[in-house]
Amino acid sequence: MVYLDYASTSNVRPEIMDIAQKYLTDVFGNPSSLHRAGLDAENAVKKSTKLIARALGCKECELIFTSGGTEGNNLAILNAFFHHPNKAKHIITSAVEHHAVLAPCEHLANMGWKVSYMPVTADGTVDVDALLGAWDEDTALISLIFVNNETGAVNPIGEIAARLRAAGYTGLIHTDATQMIGKMSIDVKSFGVDLLTASGHKFNAPKGVGFLYVKEGTALHPMILGGGQQLGRRSGTLNVFGITSMALALESKRARQQQLLRHVYGLENHLIDGVKAIAPEVLVLSEGAKLPYITALAFPNIKSEVLLHSLEAKGIYVSSGSACGSHRRGKVSHVVEAMGVPETYRDGVIRVSIDAVETSIEDIDMLISALKEILPKLNKVMGE
Amino acid sequence: MVYLDYASTSNVRPEIMDIAQKYLTDVFGNPSSLHRAGLDAENAVKKSTKLIARALGCKECELIFTSGGTEGNNLAILNAFFHHPNKAKHIITSAVEHHAVLAPCEHLANMGWKVSYMPVTADGTVDVDALLGAWDEDTALISLIFVNNETGAVNPIGEIAARLRAAGYTGLIHTDATQMIGKMSIDVKSFGVDLLTASGHKFNAPKGVGFLYVKEGTALHPMILGGGQQLGRRSGTLNVFGITSMALALESKRARQQQLLRHVYGLENHLIDGVKAIAPEVLVLSEGAKLPYITALAFPNIKSEVLLHSLEAKGIYVSSGSACGSHRRGKVSHVVEAMGVPETYRDGVIRVSIDAVETSIEDIDMLISALKEILPKLNKVMGE
Repeated sequence: MVYLDYASTSNVRPEIMDIAQKYLTDVFGNPSSLHRAGLDAENAVKKSTKLIARALGCKECELIFTSGGTEGNNLAILNAFFHHPNKAKHIITSAVEHHAVLAPCEHLANMGWKVSYMPVTADGTVDVDALLGAWDEDTALISLIFVNNETGAVNPIGEIAARLRAAGYTGLIHTDATQMIGKMSIDVKSFGVDLLTASGHKFNAPKGVGFLYVKEGTALHPMILGGGQQLGRRSGTLNVFGITSMALALESKRARQQQLLRHVYGLENHLIDGVKAIAPEVLVLSEGAKLPYITALAFPNIKSEVLLHSLEAKGIYVSSGSACGSHRRGKVSHVVEAMGVPETYRDGVIRVSIDAVETSIEDIDMLISALKEILPKLNKVMGE
Repeated sequence: MVYLDYASTSNVRPEIMDIAQKYLTDVFGNPSSLHRAGLDAENAVKKSTKLIARALGCKECELIFTSGGTEGNNLAILNAFFHHPNKAKHIITSAVEHHAVLAPCEHLANMGWKVSYMPVTADGTVDVDALLGAWDEDTALISLIFVNNETGAVNPIGEIAARLRAAGYTGLIHTDATQMIGKMSIDVKSFGVDLLTASGHKFNAPKGVGFLYVKEGTALHPMILGGGQQLGRRSGTLNVFGITSMALALESKRARQQQLLRHVYGLENHLIDGVKAIAPEVLVLSEGAKLPYITALAFPNIKSEVLLHSLEAKGIYVSSGSACGSHRRGKVSHVVEAMGVPETYRDGVIRVSIDAVETSIEDIDMLISALKEILPKLNKVMGE
């Protein structure tokens, strides 16, 4: 099997399982318990919080553990609503967000809020001039994706936030950094955002855990209420195993983030050069504006589903976009549409996403030679 | 270490880790992905759903996977709000609920809803006559705990629901079954409830996973929106490892639930007889009305925190009530207060909670001999 769908989800590395599984079987206490077994679990969470805070460059009290990126995005966006429960306000987001941002925004729209969707330029990054002209004193929240999950396009969040603040914008700024955390060096203070969402399973932690960064001083209205864990901001027994695994996964990358990124740039070059050599007509979406971990390849006059299945038959797993949108199969992705990808290419987009440690140059070569074999056949079928 | 705090949280059994950990390291796909790796993960979730549905006696489509009991309770209760977004309605709950029920009810009260808290009788079960007189056509939801987390008191949910329906009540009925699932045989249809909350880590599954049973035909308004997983009722990438572990944990108990329960009754008898022999003045809360897994022992004129720490010094871990309420330390539990426990006993309640497989008769004996040594010293200190 050649798995090239790490933007959908990733594996937990065995060396992390070796350490973290004791928090399920052995040191399994409830961090809220007052005895030693609880204290041991609480200490594991505290140590993990410290590691994550160091990786982000933030304070420990600025982190809230969630069940994943979707909860984090919902919490960040509904928070804007709870800030203004009695007055419908305005939210700005972009046309290329993940559904975990779009859906809660639509929910607020149904409750009478105004939602503006910023266009993107041809490279898939948000149109900053449009954004700077779109907010007014009614704007409660601006939510922008950091690294696009379908194309890898990187929004210059730090620069955007700085320009918004310079222009006088005082509302909240949130970024969905689900595809960024664990892949780029992070200095969250320099981003100038109030809220940042991360999801563990995108960077080799288990599914079912993530965190929301909340800048100190930002009021956060909880979505899940109960025992008052996490200073009342997110109740529920802490997922000690998930949090510990997430901290270890992030820590394993922190010290060598640049080295990993350089390595992935090498793999990306090999991939793009290789595909262009066999299919010069290919479009690489967001080329030049993207993180190398994700590469969306658009082929003209091809159905991506057919290509996907042909690759799968050879044991090569890529995706046609976001896994979370896969029940919308058959529909052109909203990201591809918003980017203005030419009509002939819209149905033929596949996403190749790689892991810095797991993916080898041989994996890329297998994909390229499979494409070399499959594409001419598909072209023939489509052309006739 | 003698861990007697299984109502706070429990361990994942090694034989389950052996099977389930492959869903983190090996079969790690995203169930929403369209390729084989995704399909393998989806199949694991489907198989798990089938096992849990069989254990509950419900349909697979009646289960929603959550991040745990707190989310499940919030989802069930906020659902009542979303059913009537434009009209403040009425909720009935009891005075002895978990904070994961009380807190969302308080939230609705803050938004103008009326919340009635039913009293309990001396045995800690809900006063059914009071309940039958408390609802009216404005009552949108009745939420009652199945097995009390502090005393083990079992509310006769099936009987209560039947009497409510016979009296003409047509609103929703929810039960927080967090301390019941995995401990008693379940036939959810016979309970007559619309919504039932379960939490994995209370029955040897990992922390961070649970489920909400939603009776077929009951509209459920989602709380977490996004990619549309779980028929749109709870978005977010499925926690494959957590769900699989939870199904295996439940399945391992299902066939021998009665046998395990009998065994735990034996341990409980041994515990209560042993404690009464050395401290005849002890009160066993909800005695005669409780599940044997949880035993709350109340000693007169003693501070439970002091007793807890003396036991801890001997490596014996019990709790003074709910772990989730542990930040409220020093305050008498709302459950103890609602039950009308005599004043002299209120500060001296410890909760002993046992596991059917992990807890041995020797563990109980160690607790009893520790109490035999500690109690006279504490009595002496308090008496002078």
